[in-house]
Amino acid sequence: MPESSNTHPAASGGGPVRDGIPEHGRIPRYYAVKVELLGLIAELGEGAALPTERELGERFDVSRATIRQAVGELVLEGRLSRRQGSGTFVAGPKLVQPLALGSYTEGLRRAGIQPGRTLITLETVPAGAALGADLRIARDDRVVHIERVLLADDERVGLESTYLVADRFPGLLEVFDPADSLYACLRDRFGVRFEGADERVETVLATPREALLIGTNPALPMLLMHRVSWGPDERPFERVRSLFRGDRLSFSTRLTP
Amino acid sequence: MPESSNTHPAASGGGPVRDGIPEHGRIPRYYAVKVELLGLIAELGEGAALPTERELGERFDVSRATIRQAVGELVLEGRLSRRQGSGTFVAGPKLVQPLALGSYTEGLRRAGIQPGRTLITLETVPAGAALGADLRIARDDRVVHIERVLLADDERVGLESTYLVADRFPGLLEVFDPADSLYACLRDRFGVRFEGADERVETVLATPREALLIGTNPALPMLLMHRVSWGPDERPFERVRSLFRGDRLSFSTRLTP
Repeated sequence: MPESSNTHPAASGGGPVRDGIPEHGRIPRYYAVKVELLGLIAELGEGAALPTERELGERFDVSRATIRQAVGELVLEGRLSRRQGSGTFVAGPKLVQPLALGSYTEGLRRAGIQPGRTLITLETVPAGAALGADLRIARDDRVVHIERVLLADDERVGLESTYLVADRFPGLLEVFDPADSLYACLRDRFGVRFEGADERVETVLATPREALLIGTNPALPMLLMHRVSWGPDERPFERVRSLFRGDRLSFSTRLTP
Repeated sequence: MPESSNTHPAASGGGPVRDGIPEHGRIPRYYAVKVELLGLIAELGEGAALPTERELGERFDVSRATIRQAVGELVLEGRLSRRQGSGTFVAGPKLVQPLALGSYTEGLRRAGIQPGRTLITLETVPAGAALGADLRIARDDRVVHIERVLLADDERVGLESTYLVADRFPGLLEVFDPADSLYACLRDRFGVRFEGADERVETVLATPREALLIGTNPALPMLLMHRVSWGPDERPFERVRSLFRGDRLSFSTRLTP
């Protein structure tokens, strides 16, 4: 393991990457402005307010529509953030979450960020065909469904739906505090040991309901993780669907042979 | 390891996930159409042609602009694909690439897909500050930069930039065939052993240059992977930036304690 593992070299995002300008063909006006804005963002620093659209239009001698397109992309990419009624600001870097068996809670705590959760749904329902197949239970078998908005330092960053095989966790709803770590509860109250999980990562657009719950623009690209976890008996006990704001989170992993 | 590891339960995407309709508030018209179109897509099956915008507008009794918004999202999400001049078709499922030390080539071959590459850039340049720090070399030390478009069964799906410490691979440019696997060349010609890599995954928008090279819509969400790899001596020897079409690829990993 290299010494630099703490500084995580893959995370710098630096390097002589091409600057995004087509070698043949016209440079789109909005993109030239976007490159200028990236320079301005670096100068201003995290938390600083961006000048108004009108000011930027004058500075770069382009229309406000062009400014709006460039700023819009930088917002979608998490370089700028809009605060209702108070303008546009230089955003902080994306949070880096490890892809690990540990929970969201543990990943954030390790990064010095305060995790939080807001309960949206808590119900016991029949598994149905697809979920039953994933969890290797009958379609009529019951699952506990826990849906929570995930917070990082009080900011909404994701939406997580966990489906647990109900039979394996009798009385879960009585002992589980939805504001706390589910994995800690499973370990402490039910002696669960995580032996492995299959995870799949893709990028999707939020549905209107998801955008409403997370408080994002529906056009924002999201990172969607699907997970199925099992214990030492190799039987899957949970299926998780976690949706994260693509402008606020990235995921890291260490690969070994 | 559960028996179902071949079928990859996390990949089904099924389960009683909420259908995306806000519980309070109006259902956006385009989203209701999108849900209807998902049903139609399932009925039609992979490769089938979608009816025209006019036909769909009449069928669902909405404007063509509403149809266009719903179809546009389904294209960005990879459920539909547009072919120049011949209409819109039901797309196949996203390719699932394992997050592994192996190369793009090996991942695709294992999935029965023919990998290909088109060379864009092949040059030896000074590392510069950021890349030098990642690779733990001086900023004036030279790196070999190999930029290639990645193909899957002749379809462009990504763009990969690899930066290799030039000193470690003397004569690389003479023996390396850019149409072939770089990792195979590093192993066979230079005796490289991959001991580990740090990888980071995020979602970004393509730059105009990248969109041009990959042949995508610039608004398409992409998956961006940053990787730094090292050998048994723990010294990093490459930094890789791989950009993949978010509508065509997803990534999988198996987590262990």
